[in-house]
Amino acid sequence: MNSRLLLLGAGRSASSLIQYLLRHAPTENWFLTVADANPAHLAPVLAAHSEYARVLPFALEDETLLDQLVSEADVVISMLPALFHPVVARACLHHGRHLATASYVSAEIREMGAEAAAQGLTFLMECGLDPGLDHMSAMRVIEHIRARGGRLTSFKSYCGGLLAPAAEGDNPWKYKFTWNPRNVVLAGQSTAKYLENGHLRFIPYQQLFARTETLAVPGWGEFEGYANRDSLSYRAPYGLDDIPTILRGTLRRPGYCAAWHALVRLGLTDDAVRLGNADTLTWEQLIEAYLPIAKAPGLDLPTRLAAYLNLAPESEEMGRLHWLGLFSDRPVGLPDATPAQLLEKLLTEKWALQPHDHDLIVMQHLFEFELDGQRRRATSSLVVTGDDATHTAMAKTVGLPLGMAVRRLLRGELTQRGVVIPVQTDLYEPILNELAADYGITFVEEEN
Amino acid sequence: MNSRLLLLGAGRSASSLIQYLLRHAPTENWFLTVADANPAHLAPVLAAHSEYARVLPFALEDETLLDQLVSEADVVISMLPALFHPVVARACLHHGRHLATASYVSAEIREMGAEAAAQGLTFLMECGLDPGLDHMSAMRVIEHIRARGGRLTSFKSYCGGLLAPAAEGDNPWKYKFTWNPRNVVLAGQSTAKYLENGHLRFIPYQQLFARTETLAVPGWGEFEGYANRDSLSYRAPYGLDDIPTILRGTLRRPGYCAAWHALVRLGLTDDAVRLGNADTLTWEQLIEAYLPIAKAPGLDLPTRLAAYLNLAPESEEMGRLHWLGLFSDRPVGLPDATPAQLLEKLLTEKWALQPHDHDLIVMQHLFEFELDGQRRRATSSLVVTGDDATHTAMAKTVGLPLGMAVRRLLRGELTQRGVVIPVQTDLYEPILNELAADYGITFVEEEN
Repeated sequence: MNSRLLLLGAGRSASSLIQYLLRHAPTENWFLTVADANPAHLAPVLAAHSEYARVLPFALEDETLLDQLVSEADVVISMLPALFHPVVARACLHHGRHLATASYVSAEIREMGAEAAAQGLTFLMECGLDPGLDHMSAMRVIEHIRARGGRLTSFKSYCGGLLAPAAEGDNPWKYKFTWNPRNVVLAGQSTAKYLENGHLRFIPYQQLFARTETLAVPGWGEFEGYANRDSLSYRAPYGLDDIPTILRGTLRRPGYCAAWHALVRLGLTDDAVRLGNADTLTWEQLIEAYLPIAKAPGLDLPTRLAAYLNLAPESEEMGRLHWLGLFSDRPVGLPDATPAQLLEKLLTEKWALQPHDHDLIVMQHLFEFELDGQRRRATSSLVVTGDDATHTAMAKTVGLPLGMAVRRLLRGELTQRGVVIPVQTDLYEPILNELAADYGITFVEEEN
Repeated sequence: MNSRLLLLGAGRSASSLIQYLLRHAPTENWFLTVADANPAHLAPVLAAHSEYARVLPFALEDETLLDQLVSEADVVISMLPALFHPVVARACLHHGRHLATASYVSAEIREMGAEAAAQGLTFLMECGLDPGLDHMSAMRVIEHIRARGGRLTSFKSYCGGLLAPAAEGDNPWKYKFTWNPRNVVLAGQSTAKYLENGHLRFIPYQQLFARTETLAVPGWGEFEGYANRDSLSYRAPYGLDDIPTILRGTLRRPGYCAAWHALVRLGLTDDAVRLGNADTLTWEQLIEAYLPIAKAPGLDLPTRLAAYLNLAPESEEMGRLHWLGLFSDRPVGLPDATPAQLLEKLLTEKWALQPHDHDLIVMQHLFEFELDGQRRRATSSLVVTGDDATHTAMAKTVGLPLGMAVRRLLRGELTQRGVVIPVQTDLYEPILNELAADYGITFVEEEN
């Protein structure tokens, strides 16, 4: 039986998903429609597969076309920005179509779950990397511990989109944008919540990047993790309601967080105020404007900034700020902008992924559990390197699990209806196995 | 000719305004209608004046009643929360009525200015204390300097609602709530902007309470001022577009800001995250939750907090935190609240104005100007003490200027139409003179 697949949104993180869907379309009897706002770059890719694939221009605002496309599909895969998913999901309910995304279950999507289930539809959510592969790989270890009668006492989980070491070059931040720059600049701007030994723990934004943990991934060196916004929300879906310690975090290379903390303290990540600046204001003038009036006018700007932030002038943090060009006469380039907008503009140039760069996805789970009266530890670690500028590690780890989940669904191997996230063995086991067998994407599990 | 006055909203800051309006109603031939959500406390006050005053219950949502009341008035005075002013202003336009408030001109009100002017209506805005008396008293000095041919080079202006010294008692913050507690807790949560020597200066929230200036008011001791959000917006209305230095700030007693800075750094002023806490969580447990896991478990909570914040355990900042009860076993009392909500609840009890307390309004302007080739300085300072718990300094300084401005308007002494703020001599001079002559509310102007 033929299946009609509709993929909405084909930005750069959809490349590996499209490749996966095209690979399996002939044997699975799929016909794939890719609808995107800027489909020109896809035409040559799909031309070679015109028997079972086509590409269409599609504007997000065009609800008439959306409705028509959904009505003509059996399953809708949305790689659109998450805020558009409720509109897509309502069209799926209207026409009785399955849905699959790599985004978090929002309150609106959650509310549609009962109606989807009643119609016999599956809304596959959180099937990408984070959320997605994190659920799958963590649940595999958790279920393995449970099956042996173990009791989990601590679960910490970190993920980061980083750079292959060769791509780090002379960039002391060892970071470039492989994801939405705005989200990186505004990361963590609320109080992070987690549990430690049964006690709620809070870290406010102004301390977040100063309170990191160091992790080691064998063969890949050290990383540092800062806490994500709400680690508590992972307890229920993982069946860990009573776990004493749970923490989710984001990974960076060592040194990034201390230098970012300096930017936070300086005030450059505030997105609430328009500065009224001219676009010809230079970066050194902007930084000067954040300092108290110089009491010792003989000292240069970096020296005064270091003193203001209680940093040594030759510290690594100051080195990273220098490298960004914060003390240069280069114009900020945007008039009447927020500090965060100016920082994003600067970083988008300084942290631009180059065509020859390879990105790196790193994920690590750390478990503590009691088994047969003994305290034990386990880790599960994943490192994925991008193939090239198209098939980045990000695109592979977001797109392949999503494609594989859709394939399970269309093969009838997934019987759950309503809103589904990949925390059930029958969904995640085949996906983790396929990732390892066909793509070498393998979690290294260790226990001691 | 009789005039019909409608006063919308009669909360505690309206007491002196009502007294002023009642005082002048017989001689000015006014009839006053006071409309308030909870009018019971006003009935005895107005009963003695029933020939020219009445009180009515009025719910903010009741737009039908609002429409009727506005249609029956000649001038509408709104002491409602500022967000309701556009609704009131539209009713005034509809029925061709004057409007008077003590609130800032919002974008919505500004847009109505042309239509008001075309109808021959005056929308008197910013006629209270701050904004209000600040405009009047600053403009009097500015015009005086200009009239002599002086050129202003610096204008700094501070205002604070504080406590008469006897009311400070053993409260080391020397502060109690005489104004909206929520606004005090959330004060300054954006980057402050001002001008210094022709250069834009920025102070982000996380530095704001650490970068204060000290001021002295003769006979009243020292105060400290922190910068307000946008000082630049005062240039145009004051005709100071080219002034090199302009700063607006809020006054506190010395020591307040450093201790508040500790609360900010700790994270207790964040209003963006719900903590998921139980209402039985104690304050010491909450503070503990903000600290990193104790590495030296023998040390008590205040000692560890002091170390975390780089404060001496016996510092004044720590003394103020102790006094608030942050290290007590008292429950926070609100479930799943934001840190700012919990702090507001605590402070509302600790900083409650007592019936015998007198509040204090302090305002100080500092000018620098060039005159006849010389650099000169001038100050204008105001200190007002509350009469009692009803006629607080806040109620007097907000309500009396507003009442006086309305009186000018109804006597035909104010010919400006459209949106008007009190920066014109013909409006502010009679008000400043009446405040001094009838109420002893006098700015002390000094020049050297």
